Amino acid sequence: MNRQNPDQELRDAVWVAHSLFERGKTAGSSANLSVRVGDTVYITASGTCFGRLREEDLVPIGMDGKPLSDRKPSKEWPLHLALYEKSPEIGAVIHTHSSYSVLWSFAVGDEDRDCIPPHTPYLRMKLGSVGAVPYERPGSEALFAAFRARVPFSDGFLLRQHGPVVPGADIMEAFYNLEELEESARIAWELRRAGM
Amino acid sequence: MNRQNPDQELRDAVWVAHSLFERGKTAGSSANLSVRVGDTVYITASGTCFGRLREEDLVPIGMDGKPLSDRKPSKEWPLHLALYEKSPEIGAVIHTHSSYSVLWSFAVGDEDRDCIPPHTPYLRMKLGSVGAVPYERPGSEALFAAFRARVPFSDGFLLRQHGPVVPGADIMEAFYNLEELEESARIAWELRRAGM
Amino acid sequence: MNRQNPDQELRDAVWVAHSLFERGKTAGSSANLSVRVGDTVYITASGTCFGRLREEDLVPIGMDGKPLSDRKPSKEWPLHLALYEKSPEIGAVIHTHSSYSVLWSFAVGDEDRDCIPPHTPYLRMKLGSVGAVPYERPGSEALFAAFRARVPFSDGFLLRQHGPVVPGADIMEAFYNLEELEESARIAWELRRAGM
Amino acid sequence: MNRQNPDQELRDAVWVAHSLFERGKTAGSSANLSVRVGDTVYITASGTCFGRLREEDLVPIGMDGKPLSDRKPSKEWPLHLALYEKSPEIGAVIHTHSSYSVLWSFAVGDEDRDCIPPHTPYLRMKLGSVGAVPYERPGSEALFAAFRARVPFSDGFLLRQHGPVVPGADIMEAFYNLEELEESARIAWELRRAGM
Repeated sequence: MNRQNPDQELRDAVWVAHSLFERGKTAGSSANLSVRVGDTVYITASGTCFGRLREEDLVPIGMDGKPLSDRKPSKEWPLHLALYEKSPEIGAVIHTHSSYSVLWSFAVGDEDRDCIPPHTPYLRMKLGSVGAVPYERPGSEALFAAFRARVPFSDGFLLRQHGPVVPGADIMEAFYNLEELEESARIAWELRRAGM
Repeated sequence: MNRQNPDQELRDAVWVAHSLFERGKTAGSSANLSVRVGDTVYITASGTCFGRLREEDLVPIGMDGKPLSDRKPSKEWPLHLALYEKSPEIGAVIHTHSSYSVLWSFAVGDEDRDCIPPHTPYLRMKLGSVGAVPYERPGSEALFAAFRARVPFSDGFLLRQHGPVVPGADIMEAFYNLEELEESARIAWELRRAGM
Repeated sequence: MNRQNPDQELRDAVWVAHSLFERGKTAGSSANLSVRVGDTVYITASGTCFGRLREEDLVPIGMDGKPLSDRKPSKEWPLHLALYEKSPEIGAVIHTHSSYSVLWSFAVGDEDRDCIPPHTPYLRMKLGSVGAVPYERPGSEALFAAFRARVPFSDGFLLRQHGPVVPGADIMEAFYNLEELEESARIAWELRRAGM
Repeated sequence: MNRQNPDQELRDAVWVAHSLFERGKTAGSSANLSVRVGDTVYITASGTCFGRLREEDLVPIGMDGKPLSDRKPSKEWPLHLALYEKSPEIGAVIHTHSSYSVLWSFAVGDEDRDCIPPHTPYLRMKLGSVGAVPYERPGSEALFAAFRARVPFSDGFLLRQHGPVVPGADIMEAFYNLEELEESARIAWELRRAGM
């Protein structure tokens, strides 16, 4: 259950989207995020850009994925719902195509349940383990099925050739988790390149 | 034909220019963009900087390239018109010297009609193929001729030792396409450097 | 002793936090900073994010580490106090997980008292020497003890697999020192990777 | 002679400083710039930070380097005057420690009068040649003498282990030249690293 009041949570979600975009952690229209308020999930509408996101671009869907307004949600909503169904403690989810996470996804195996090396300790301390998810076409039922099959076994997820999906108790925690994952992937990638 | 109302399209073009500049996707005075409104193309004036672009710096030219105001358009206007002539569906064009696209242009061949490897699927899903264009001096008739000769065979273009040229139905779509191309070039460059 | 008036120093600290975050020198909630005003140290509260820091997030503690308000200070406060105890000339301390400093920390030895090569002269001119601190779990007494043992022998510090800790006479000087350390680590890392 | 009106030139100089800082082309307090208005040069005061520069931080000095106010100019003022003395066409000078230019300075020789390879054509088209200047301690008379000895033979300059110094007819042209130099150094560095 999301710990914040809903209004603050939506405002924070917009800040998070702008901040990720402006600092190069996502680009174009490729990212999506959501927050859970009671039995409703507010998720970025289809085709939105994190750099210009407004509160009204977070559109409500039910826990069955059904739109509760006339705006179409991101087609990747099943990734979000799979995490909300995992635990009532999860109140927010962020998915991006952050560059170092994407690069690192080419260095991991399909069945790896803890795919980011602990060169620094923070990712483990904040988020826990990050499981790899095999490549399937974005938005496809095959991808959603592969994702759901791995949800029980790790805390965050890295879709191969695609990008990270991370939960948090609220949107700021999901943001801190994503930031730590991207930074950890960067360190892992650079050390690997250096043969260290 | 551009799908937006003209005023919104010009406002969006200014936002796109500022955003590309502030996030390091272009630098100095090297980029240009245009939008088509009916039979008029509004293109960045010669010598403008994306970081300080204002709506009045988008100057009108006709479909024959003739200036419709007393301000000089970017000297690279023939690249833009070659795309508008290709299809009435094209409503905006962006050209930059984005770093990873430029780097990747040293790894491709002059005749490659699909020169960005599909390590991730989005570029193909959004834009389609990206054709290489051989090096010719910027602003030269030789470059414009080489470009026009390749326009029919690909969806976006990468001028070798120079930078990308991408179309969109409107300026936001062209922006999303450019962002995806630069990100795809980054992944391609880094994986190649890693021998992956 | 801090040379500035306290109000200006707190305002500058907020500017520094925002600037480091927005320019990618720190991410998420991982950094902390402090300024000394008389016998009171104002340090970032636990769980704060440099990107959203406000003046009221700088919470007072005594020189013994005791909180002087009801907000919990960063758990890394002992690193800060160890520097204030070293010299009355130290008026501010910044700790981040800046990427190149973290990467370089994998290339140094536990006992190195001057671990950044002087490829350029500024770090030496501004800050002086940077001593390595062996890895211990963040926030642990073992880390604080290892840090205190090295404080007398260098001017700034690099916690291995963790990040830099730098002092300054005031927050702007600490900021300039941190910027120079991160830039020097970047040059050292890139030249090492290039075999130069 | 500077082509702009003096007020606009000072405003532009502040915009340039902020923009270079915010986009990571300079860091901390290491950069300086100047503009010439008649026989007076307005140069950044000693110890200023490009990220917080205000118009009043541009302090007047005479063409002999003598301060015309009670604020101390950047100690690197002789680099600026050496360029103004070279030609009345030079109206502005920028000096930074931009990362890729600094990295590339480790790959060039002390006597190279054209040290940036023309992988892309723009630097040559905009600025011309860039001459290397051998390492001497920043602010030293030895550095100023080495710089003056090379001024006649190139258009822009790269101080080894230190950073670029570039002129322009006005501050915006100097800015475009610096941006192109840094981008060209980036391409040169990355292609060299890739063995291309």
